[in-house]
This record gives sequence, structure tokens and C-alpha cells, in this order.
Amino acid sequence: MKGKVELLAITPDCKRVIEQAGRTCYRSGSKSQPGSEKEFIPRVIKNGHHSVLEHGYATFRITGVSRSFTHQLVRHRLCAFSQRSQRYVNEENFAYVEPQSIAENAEAHRIFEKIMNDTKYAYRELQNLGIKNEDARYVLANGTQSEIVISANFRQLRHMFCVRCDRHAQLEIRTIVLQMLRIMKKEAPSVFGDFVIDEETSTAYTPFYS
Amino acid sequence: MKGKVELLAITPDCKRVIEQAGRTCYRSGSKSQPGSEKEFIPRVIKNGHHSVLEHGYATFRITGVSRSFTHQLVRHRLCAFSQRSQRYVNEENFAYVEPQSIAENAEAHRIFEKIMNDTKYAYRELQNLGIKNEDARYVLANGTQSEIVISANFRQLRHMFCVRCDRHAQLEIRTIVLQMLRIMKKEAPSVFGDFVIDEETSTAYTPFYS
Amino acid sequence: MKGKVELLAITPDCKRVIEQAGRTCYRSGSKSQPGSEKEFIPRVIKNGHHSVLEHGYATFRITGVSRSFTHQLVRHRLCAFSQRSQRYVNEENFAYVEPQSIAENAEAHRIFEKIMNDTKYAYRELQNLGIKNEDARYVLANGTQSEIVISANFRQLRHMFCVRCDRHAQLEIRTIVLQMLRIMKKEAPSVFGDFVIDEETSTAYTPFYS
Amino acid sequence: MKGKVELLAITPDCKRVIEQAGRTCYRSGSKSQPGSEKEFIPRVIKNGHHSVLEHGYATFRITGVSRSFTHQLVRHRLCAFSQRSQRYVNEENFAYVEPQSIAENAEAHRIFEKIMNDTKYAYRELQNLGIKNEDARYVLANGTQSEIVISANFRQLRHMFCVRCDRHAQLEIRTIVLQMLRIMKKEAPSVFGDFVIDEETSTAYTPFYS
Repeated sequence: MKGKVELLAITPDCKRVIEQAGRTCYRSGSKSQPGSEKEFIPRVIKNGHHSVLEHGYATFRITGVSRSFTHQLVRHRLCAFSQRSQRYVNEENFAYVEPQSIAENAEAHRIFEKIMNDTKYAYRELQNLGIKNEDARYVLANGTQSEIVISANFRQLRHMFCVRCDRHAQLEIRTIVLQMLRIMKKEAPSVFGDFVIDEETSTAYTPFYS
Repeated sequence: MKGKVELLAITPDCKRVIEQAGRTCYRSGSKSQPGSEKEFIPRVIKNGHHSVLEHGYATFRITGVSRSFTHQLVRHRLCAFSQRSQRYVNEENFAYVEPQSIAENAEAHRIFEKIMNDTKYAYRELQNLGIKNEDARYVLANGTQSEIVISANFRQLRHMFCVRCDRHAQLEIRTIVLQMLRIMKKEAPSVFGDFVIDEETSTAYTPFYS
Repeated sequence: MKGKVELLAITPDCKRVIEQAGRTCYRSGSKSQPGSEKEFIPRVIKNGHHSVLEHGYATFRITGVSRSFTHQLVRHRLCAFSQRSQRYVNEENFAYVEPQSIAENAEAHRIFEKIMNDTKYAYRELQNLGIKNEDARYVLANGTQSEIVISANFRQLRHMFCVRCDRHAQLEIRTIVLQMLRIMKKEAPSVFGDFVIDEETSTAYTPFYS
Repeated sequence: MKGKVELLAITPDCKRVIEQAGRTCYRSGSKSQPGSEKEFIPRVIKNGHHSVLEHGYATFRITGVSRSFTHQLVRHRLCAFSQRSQRYVNEENFAYVEPQSIAENAEAHRIFEKIMNDTKYAYRELQNLGIKNEDARYVLANGTQSEIVISANFRQLRHMFCVRCDRHAQLEIRTIVLQMLRIMKKEAPSVFGDFVIDEETSTAYTPFYS
């Protein structure tokens, strides 16, 4: 199973809200009219007045991702997270994420599958011995699948797109965050339109950094 | 002019989003059904699992408030703010907020009106002498009206309602934040229904403190 | 190896700094004198004026802990973290944390040891096949040892002590955070003296919640 | 009276703490030796690994500044603040900050002095009529002197230096924040040495923007 991103919620008519907030600073609300945000929002981004983007907010559900990914993701401290708990959820039938470099190497793939199966067996044996899930999970691998809901404002999302769509980011997080970027480019083009996605390398870039 | 609060945006179908996020932790999504949030959300609040409320987000425009108020408000660091700037806006015709205790005392009211008029005159004279607005504003009083747009997630809003609707809060901020609470109680009763408003004292209270 | 906590740094003469900051609000600096913080700081804590505690700051190095622990720890968003990276560090000789409930059960212990050894073997085989460390780590278990440096202000530390020394917290994080609390009680008794440690249950409690 | 900055506290041996934290990520602690931070810290800054700077922390007392200044300063949400309260402090003898452009213009200066005196008189009259300080303060001007204690980690300080020492920042905040920068360049040259101060224009600049 591949990592999947689903948009759960987004500020309604977000471009109007952001423009209204931005124009409050300059008391230029009277200049607001249908379509004027297409010019206003890219200008504030170019000028570095990014705080007004914080009035837009989006929530995503991310499934089919590894615990390696979630451990990286939750390091973004200006987001809200709700993650599937390995303390409270029985993981006896866990699915897992296999890195592409391993999947493409037959011998590596065999080793990976075997250790995942051995791990599942060990987890179940520990359960059978009366070990609680919260302790049995110490054998679960980084590759074990998790699920996480993340909310962030648009300024923070731009920051994530800058650092996680960079070629130095690991492939799994880059792929997931690129999916988030594609959604945001479609939902709020005036806020995220400056990001250019390079499909070949699975990276993205903007000249107007965070 | 009295302080006024207007809801600019709120997470669509916020109770569903919060329930979905909350159930991710326990993998109990299958228990979700129309209306189940009415029971689910108050329970997570009661149990102190407040982080799931961060997936709800609201934006308000607040007008007719003093700079005393805004200086207090922006101390809430987990919010987003866009405030009318006294550097960029010409305040030669500023309006002002008069505290109730002054308005109700004829002599105090006279003193207050006079110093506001004198201040307006001084501000304009400084402008006429070529002083920039950003410097002339040093004569403007705390009572000078401002305008601010604020966005916050529901957990942070609950925290604001706890500390700013308390009887120790100053009257202006209490009155404004109570207006925000009234709006949220109507928009998201499953999240804010536990707050009880005492209209007589203009305070509010919940047993489930942030 | 057991989890270990070492204090790397703390605000020098922190109680004086906190008292000075707190008295700024009331302009009561003249009341400050040697020893007066012993009375001043507990009073502001009791009164809920916790923001002044943010002027105290401490940094800890935590070693011999699992990745389960660090994944929980980094959810505290108002802290600073630097963690040993499984992308950049070769983990071929990783150590691991064994939960107490498993260590105390001979059969569970045998299963745990075996799967850890099998995992180490699989990790090395993947390395030998040319898989990068950042991908090979997907087989590493939650129990794999990590190392993390954490900095936080005293208000945030009090919050951590409240939620992580509670009996509902998992044993590993509770044990580590209790070690941090013991250090802080010794280093800054006027700020943390209200916490009572119950050695028998490895929990702590204060009547003056966050 | 001119704005003044005093360092109240700073992480002891901060460069060693930062280097230790930074080397935890790469497990390169063995490369640490006396003086090695002079090379290590500038390199992590250049590489954008700024999170390790969050383990350094500093506290400043700022006096003789206006409420215009403090209203700007407290917008930095990743800092801790304790400010002299106009609710709790009797301001009948308030001092004030006069912008340089006004002080240098004899006529503007006269107008400024007069309105400050009138304001002081009005404030006292309101007090005499039994109006509480928290309401009487609505007549106090932006120029009224305040006092504030601020704590921030080194990463956040670098951000403040970038945006507030820029030529677009207002003179008062630029002057104060430049004083903070001068102190930090002396106290922690390996962390702040890349900032170049232009004394003529009272600005500062670094090529390694936050």
C-alpha cells in the first residue's frame, strides 16, 4: 500500500479571508473586489508579509505511511497532529511500508519481507504471553504503517513544502508532502502558485522561501 | 462605537473533522455516524484529550476596540493576528474607546473627551510639521480605536475563554471575548457547550478547564 | 542499559531572574532581596501567573531510551530537540530498550532478544546489499536505542511533569521524566518544590496544575 | 531617557551546549574538543540546521522604551515576556519616549511636551475622580514608557535580528534590537558573528538569513 493524502477540511473561501486580513493592516479594505486577491496575495508573499497566510488552515488525513515518516512529520511543531496510537491499537495485523530501494532489489526485498513476518510473529507471541500492546510494540519496526491527521496554517504549510520537497528530504516524506502541495496548489492557487513541481525528481521549489 | 466581533471563517463541518481526527488515535472510525460527535467530543474534552480540538479553526474580525485591548490580545501567542498598523495608516480622524466607568461619570467623561480632542489636534499639528505618521503616533492614546483579525484553533479558543471571561479580566477584553464565545457556542455546540455564560456579571465558566 | 538523564545547562541563578521578571509586571522590584524568591515564586505559581516561569530554561541529554519514547517526547511542541538521526548514523551495532514487563517474563524475554538479533542481522544484510542507512532503518524496531537533547522553559517543564509523571503515562517516559523532575526539584526548589514524588508508584503530583 | 538593554541571563558555556546538541544528531561527539565549536557552529548555521541554536537561551531587561515598541515586540510569538502592567502600576508620574524626528524639531518638540503634560494631568484628574488605574490608562499615549523582560532562544534571536535590524524597521525597535545584537555578538560570537552591523545607518545584516 502506498502513502495517501486526503484533504479533510480547508478554510472556506480562504483567499478572501486572507485578503481581508491583509488589508486590515493597511486599511485598504475598499480596494478589495472579486478577483483582487489574485494580485494581492502573491504580492504580500513576495514582500515577505507571510503572517497573513496564517488565517488559512487545512487538515489532511495521511494513511499508508511508516512510523519513520510520522516521527519526522511531528517534528513540525507549528502543526496539530492526531496519530494512530500503538498503545491503544492492537497491531497484530500491521501493514508496512517498504522503501523503494528495497522493493527494487529482489534479495533485499526477500530479507525485508522475512523480518516483517518474523516481527509480526514475535508481536503476537508476546501478546499471547500476556504482554500489553504498549510494551509488545517495542518490537514493531519503523516500517510499520501508521495513520495521522495533520492541520496547519498556510504559512506553516509553505515552510513544510520548502524543506520537505527539497531534494535532501527522504523519499517517503517528499512524496507525501508533494501530494499535499498538489492539493494546495489546486485549492489555493494564489497562495501556493509560486511553487514549481519537478515531476521527474519529485521535488518542488519556490523563489519566495518561507 | 462599541467593540464588535464578526466571524470571518470557520472549519466547515468542524465537529466531523474533529471526531475523525480523534478516532484516528484509537482506530475507532467505524463507530462514527451522524450525530455521534455529540457524545464523542464532550467526552474527549472531559478526559483532557484536548489536542484533537486543534483541528478546528476560526477567524474573527474585531472592530471598535482600543489599543489597550489589542496589546492584551496579541499576548496570546498561539494565535494568528493581522492588525491595523499605526505606521501605515493615517490616524488623523481616529475614533476612540471610552471605558464604561469614565462614560458614566460626567466630569470624568468631560476630561476624557477633552484630552482625546487635544491629542487629535496635536497629532495633526505634528503631521503638518512633516513628522511621519509612524512617529506622530507616539501621542496617540491607548483608547485609540484599532481593528484586528484573529485566527485560532478551538483548543486555544477554549483557553482564551477560560482566562479572558474570568471576572479578573478587564471589562473590554471580557466583553469582546464573550462575543467570540457566544458565536462559538452557536457554531460548534459540541466543542463549547460546556461553557456557561453569566450574563449579569459578563463572565463565563467551564468545569473542564483547558 | 537503562535510560539516563544528564543536565547540560540551566539558567544561572534562575530564581533571581524569575523574580526580577515577575516583579517587573507590578513594579515591585524594590521588594526583592536575598531569599525573597522563596516566597515570591510559589505565590505566582499558586496564583496561576505561570508565564514568568518561562524565563528559566534547562537543557538535558537523555540516553539509553527507545524510539517509542522519543516519538512520544517530541510531541511536546514547546521544546527544542536534537535527536540522533537514523538517516545519518550507522546503526549496525544498535542497542535496545527492553520493556520491564518483557524482561521479567523468561519466555517473552527470549522472544524479544531473538527478534532484536534477527533485526540486527537483517539491517546488516541490507547494508551489505548496498541499501542506504536511511532505507535500511525501516526494519529497526521501536525498541532501538536513541539519544536526544531537549531544552525547555520551566513552565513547559512543569506541564511535562504534570502529564508524563501521571499514572496513565507509559512506564519508560514516566521514569525518564521523573528523573528530570528530581533534577529540577534540586536545582530550582522554589519553582518545582510543590511536586510530590511517590517513589513506590513512580509518579508525581502537584495541586497547582500547569 | 533612552531605551536601555541589560542582559539578565544567558545559557552558561552556550557554545559547548549547542555543539554537544548538534553532534548528537550525527553521533560525532568524539570530534568535540576545546575550540571546535568555532568551526562547528558557523557551519551548521551556513547549512541551515538552525534548530540546534534553540538550546541557547538569553534573557534581557529592556527599560526606557515606549508602548509602541512593546506592542511591536510582543508580536514575536516564540519569546517569553513579562511587561510592566498599566493595570496594576500607578502611572501618575510616567516618563515618555520622544521620537528623534520630533525631538529635533523645536515646534514639534513643544507640541509633544505639551500633550504629554496634558495627558499626565488628565490621568491624575481621572484618578482623583475615583477612576481605577486600569481605566484611566486609556488616556496614556503610545509614548508612555514601559519596561519589559524578554527571553528567547538563539534561533529566535537571530530571526529578530534579521527582521528588526533591517532598514524597514522603525527606529526605536531597531535601536533596541541592535543593542541586543551587540551583546550577543560579544557573548556568543560563534553563533552571531556572521551579523555585520552598519553603525552609520543603525542596521545589521547577515547572508545566512534565519
